[in-house]
Amino acid sequence: MQRKQLIENIKTKESFLCVGLDSDINKIPRHLLDCDDPVFEFNKAIIDATAPYCVAYKPNLAFYEATGVAGWISLEKTIKYIKTNYPDQFIIADAKRGDIGNTSALYARSFFEHLDVDALTVAPYMGRDSVTPFLGKEGKWVILLALTSNPGSADFQLIEDNAGEKLFERVIKTAHTWAGKDEIMFVVGATRGKMFEDIRRVAPESFLLVPGVGAQGGSLEEVARYGMTDDCGLLVNSSRGIIFASNETDFAEVAAREAKNLKEQMSRLLAERNIV
Amino acid sequence: MQRKQLIENIKTKESFLCVGLDSDINKIPRHLLDCDDPVFEFNKAIIDATAPYCVAYKPNLAFYEATGVAGWISLEKTIKYIKTNYPDQFIIADAKRGDIGNTSALYARSFFEHLDVDALTVAPYMGRDSVTPFLGKEGKWVILLALTSNPGSADFQLIEDNAGEKLFERVIKTAHTWAGKDEIMFVVGATRGKMFEDIRRVAPESFLLVPGVGAQGGSLEEVARYGMTDDCGLLVNSSRGIIFASNETDFAEVAAREAKNLKEQMSRLLAERNIV
Repeated sequence: MQRKQLIENIKTKESFLCVGLDSDINKIPRHLLDCDDPVFEFNKAIIDATAPYCVAYKPNLAFYEATGVAGWISLEKTIKYIKTNYPDQFIIADAKRGDIGNTSALYARSFFEHLDVDALTVAPYMGRDSVTPFLGKEGKWVILLALTSNPGSADFQLIEDNAGEKLFERVIKTAHTWAGKDEIMFVVGATRGKMFEDIRRVAPESFLLVPGVGAQGGSLEEVARYGMTDDCGLLVNSSRGIIFASNETDFAEVAAREAKNLKEQMSRLLAERNIV
Repeated sequence: MQRKQLIENIKTKESFLCVGLDSDINKIPRHLLDCDDPVFEFNKAIIDATAPYCVAYKPNLAFYEATGVAGWISLEKTIKYIKTNYPDQFIIADAKRGDIGNTSALYARSFFEHLDVDALTVAPYMGRDSVTPFLGKEGKWVILLALTSNPGSADFQLIEDNAGEKLFERVIKTAHTWAGKDEIMFVVGATRGKMFEDIRRVAPESFLLVPGVGAQGGSLEEVARYGMTDDCGLLVNSSRGIIFASNETDFAEVAAREAKNLKEQMSRLLAERNIV
């Protein structure tokens, strides 16, 4: 999906919500376990319930790989289901891949051709040739880890070089020499609140994928205050707070309610900024 | 596999060779494409041919994921085949994973329980809680990216902090506060030659997984000169140089010859150091 289309979808739906499909088979409602493919049944119900309120879905590969072949089957069916029934949804494979050039090229084939998702999260540690094989593919995106929401993010991402520049700032600046705002986004944790100001200094127009609203404690208001651009420039993800809001038979209904609630807050924040 | 057993295997076989199963379906001999599972047939023949000369196998996940479910089936069969027929081989899933705590825990389940490999390569960018869920599992290893062999490795891994310490040194030092030499190894590219001296200053006893000998241009002599410890402390990987040395019907025979050749060099290097 092109940047222009993504922005259009955000305006039309008055939402920049991404629903994280962290569909752990050990956490989905018990009554689904009798189905042939419980994870797919769960995802289908969640997607049907939440699609009116979001612009993106983000399956996290870990939750599919955990069961090996069976998990990959659920993943492929889920992506196909979204593409067939909700073609305006932006699909992010949250896989945090990154390897030497020829290997990254293989991952690119896996995600952008075989699975045909719109975007892939990529880890920057190995540098340029680990990232560039994912670039230059019409309508496809790299979402590079910059400043993540977990406690360990401070171990390396905040290290300052001898010019006082933090590693995550260096990652963003360097990545901008590889490609522009039409094909690179950055992961920035919502728990970072005011740090979005620093991020916007080095990435004034890039889209940011923001996990950590909800279960991880980040505030949507703060993210919007410090991170929103005139094009919105944000995709805010919520996973557990939506998909596991109930694990009874009403799980889809409750997920819809949670997604709608976030969407309404987003709609207001977009209006305050005169984007909708 | 415990460290002690790994060292024992290296001494018995007089080899510290790891064969990389980068089994790209587009590069395997054409005559195998008629089989039901060409990648598995290829791996089986390569494993049978090379097992006498190596102590480890390293399937790179990218080459399996590239074909989705079919690839995962080939991978699972390959791992099972090694475990059943060559239980003394150390199996490394080269996946370069790493995510927030609860997600890394899922990856740990996938690789250490479901696939039941001995070791997993992990990317350090997200810090402590992205790595520790893989630790503390009897006989299982994290192999953390430190200084990789690709050109882009210089982009971030060599950045110096304000105390003059390079990022990869910081990664190694910090990782040692999480776990010791019995469960963490580091990836250090063979193309780095003399830099192994710097690595040994911060990781005097840790095992190093060394890719980049052969196709990527690193020298085995140099790696041994600067990187070998009294326990060997090295696993040197060769992928393309062995598995794609021929892509005719004699591919397994030629792979055996290449592996044997490396094993003989390794045997000599181990003898020079009085390890065997």
